[in-house]
Amino acid sequence: MSGVRVLDLSRLLPGPFCAMILADLGADVIKVESTLLGDPMRAVPPQIGTDSWYFLSINRNKKGIALDLKAEEAKEILRKLIKICDAFVENFRPGAMSRLGFGPEEVLRLNPKIVYASISGFGHSGPYMERPAYDMVAQGMSGIMSITGEEERPPVRVGTSIGDIIAGHQAAIGILAALLWRERSGQGQHVDCAMLDGLVYILENAVVRYTISAEVPHALGTAHPSITPFQAFRTKDGYIITPIGNDALWLKFCRALGLEELANDPKFKTNSKRTKHRGELAQLLERALMGKTYQEWSQIFDEWGLPYAPINSVDKMVADSQVNQREMIVEFEHPIAGEVKMVGCPIKLSQTPPQMRMPPPVLGQHTEEILKDLLGYSSEEVKELRRRKVIV
Amino acid sequence: MSGVRVLDLSRLLPGPFCAMILADLGADVIKVESTLLGDPMRAVPPQIGTDSWYFLSINRNKKGIALDLKAEEAKEILRKLIKICDAFVENFRPGAMSRLGFGPEEVLRLNPKIVYASISGFGHSGPYMERPAYDMVAQGMSGIMSITGEEERPPVRVGTSIGDIIAGHQAAIGILAALLWRERSGQGQHVDCAMLDGLVYILENAVVRYTISAEVPHALGTAHPSITPFQAFRTKDGYIITPIGNDALWLKFCRALGLEELANDPKFKTNSKRTKHRGELAQLLERALMGKTYQEWSQIFDEWGLPYAPINSVDKMVADSQVNQREMIVEFEHPIAGEVKMVGCPIKLSQTPPQMRMPPPVLGQHTEEILKDLLGYSSEEVKELRRRKVIV
Repeated sequence: MSGVRVLDLSRLLPGPFCAMILADLGADVIKVESTLLGDPMRAVPPQIGTDSWYFLSINRNKKGIALDLKAEEAKEILRKLIKICDAFVENFRPGAMSRLGFGPEEVLRLNPKIVYASISGFGHSGPYMERPAYDMVAQGMSGIMSITGEEERPPVRVGTSIGDIIAGHQAAIGILAALLWRERSGQGQHVDCAMLDGLVYILENAVVRYTISAEVPHALGTAHPSITPFQAFRTKDGYIITPIGNDALWLKFCRALGLEELANDPKFKTNSKRTKHRGELAQLLERALMGKTYQEWSQIFDEWGLPYAPINSVDKMVADSQVNQREMIVEFEHPIAGEVKMVGCPIKLSQTPPQMRMPPPVLGQHTEEILKDLLGYSSEEVKELRRRKVIV
Repeated sequence: MSGVRVLDLSRLLPGPFCAMILADLGADVIKVESTLLGDPMRAVPPQIGTDSWYFLSINRNKKGIALDLKAEEAKEILRKLIKICDAFVENFRPGAMSRLGFGPEEVLRLNPKIVYASISGFGHSGPYMERPAYDMVAQGMSGIMSITGEEERPPVRVGTSIGDIIAGHQAAIGILAALLWRERSGQGQHVDCAMLDGLVYILENAVVRYTISAEVPHALGTAHPSITPFQAFRTKDGYIITPIGNDALWLKFCRALGLEELANDPKFKTNSKRTKHRGELAQLLERALMGKTYQEWSQIFDEWGLPYAPINSVDKMVADSQVNQREMIVEFEHPIAGEVKMVGCPIKLSQTPPQMRMPPPVLGQHTEEILKDLLGYSSEEVKELRRRKVIV
């Protein structure tokens, strides 16, 4: 994606995540921030120097410019940038960008070839359009929380801001699809992604299950609604996940556990029968699995060629050899924070591999470079704009 | 994406999800299945006729061809299709496609312009490359389960197969980025996405939090690790989510709850102080919120302009006016299942909007059409291939 230039006016999580995906794949992303405090995510504690750990996690590979968009000269800079960019990302509440003069219509008028992506809680249409929304609003309303957690226990959230992050992925897909279409049509367009829509899309089969059967899906702990045993069990010293996805694996699994009698029990013969008798089966299996440690079971499962996994805490994952060999933990030298380890990019392209080119910018780090190199401002002009606090 | 032709050899969840995203955006997707039973997802109960609800959920907008790839004539058909397609999707264990003669090298040799996307549990490199993997393996190993659930309670999974689904999204991004690069270079490439990598990427700030502080993130129920109160509380008759994302909202929130004294309490003045005293604060807030019903609070929060949300079950979400007005619930007439409601596409493009064109195919539904219209086979040839069970 080198040669694709993205203007990123977003802040907090979903837009910055979307722009990070594009940046990781080689796009030239220009992050536009306010001159006062910049992206509010910089201030979400804990911080190192002026920047939060949160901000550092999702803004690498971007260049940063800080503009006071209340000033006409700053708006002029933004208009000039719009004319030379291929995509535009924002995640304000619908209407806010238009009030600033940079809604989809205005921006597409300035540059009819630009792809303008909006990410919001509810999208740019519908009765809730202007309601305030955050990740947790989308998690709650989408139904994903109703199927996550233990049965008959209080609700839990998905432990990562999945509403923000899935919408960020979907907006990246929308931008790329629109850029591809632009290759043939020569036209830009508006990409409108909503966190609520995004989470509804990933409910897997829950909607069809409900609309066909009228049964309302509910939370099942670690269990899968239609595959059994596909869950976590206790061992002598920790949990083991046993994703037994078909009947052939089931027979092997019974033998590996020394439970030949279960293999022959008609009650558990097929996946649908096992799913029906899920509770009873779980007790029988856990009783057997409690007899050995995770380590002992892992050797037995390896011998039988059975799938299994531990439940890693984040420290274990960060130390994992596969994760590291896949370059999923990368390191940056940050001008203020020093050495920071963060996640790598998971989209591995053979000819245009993702690259970690730059640490997250400090506020206004590339303002001068962008004004001079891309827009042709002189040193004098930059100095004057800085003196008048139009830029940082 | 009309005019982009995708050959989809994947089955179960991650590859079919990836191909559905592309199909929803207008790509012509040809789903290649085995003649015997087709995509094993068709058989995961419960079923309607020959197809499962699960299969129906993730295969609309695709055409289906069924080939017995053990037969040389079927391989020849596949080779012909490879030569006229833009992208190729598979999610077998690394090495399996090469043994069949259709690994990335072979396919790129047949068509150097094709984008070949692989989705697997661990990716096409690293020490675990050939290990069996399922969604739950990636969920367990990535750390996402360790930060999802209640504190000090048994683990839970994310209630949807997020490992499969996130890798499906990332592969779609990889394919589109590669197609865009192909516009300039004329070259195809291999896109290698792993479920484990994909989930590590979406841990938000958990990795930086751990690598900087050495504190291991853990599950927090509905609470956010660094924003408070950003969680669900009980009311008199159900839960309410209160995503109070900044200090200004906090003051309004205290007043709306009639808890002026909290607004003035220095212990809770800033987000970081509230996060530090999260447990104590939650008790105080829940005591107040238990005094009224969800409905009563929603009116009060509306008056104050405060964000809030219910925790919807799937039936409530399916009936929601916003979800429906955004066309996130769509209906198909399926040849066997009859009328089926499922989720719509969340990536709303203004010029090339997503379209629901076709219900999920029954096994081999478009075999004849594809052989004749795309590859120029005669009716006689098709009949003969069918007689010899090379195709269904």
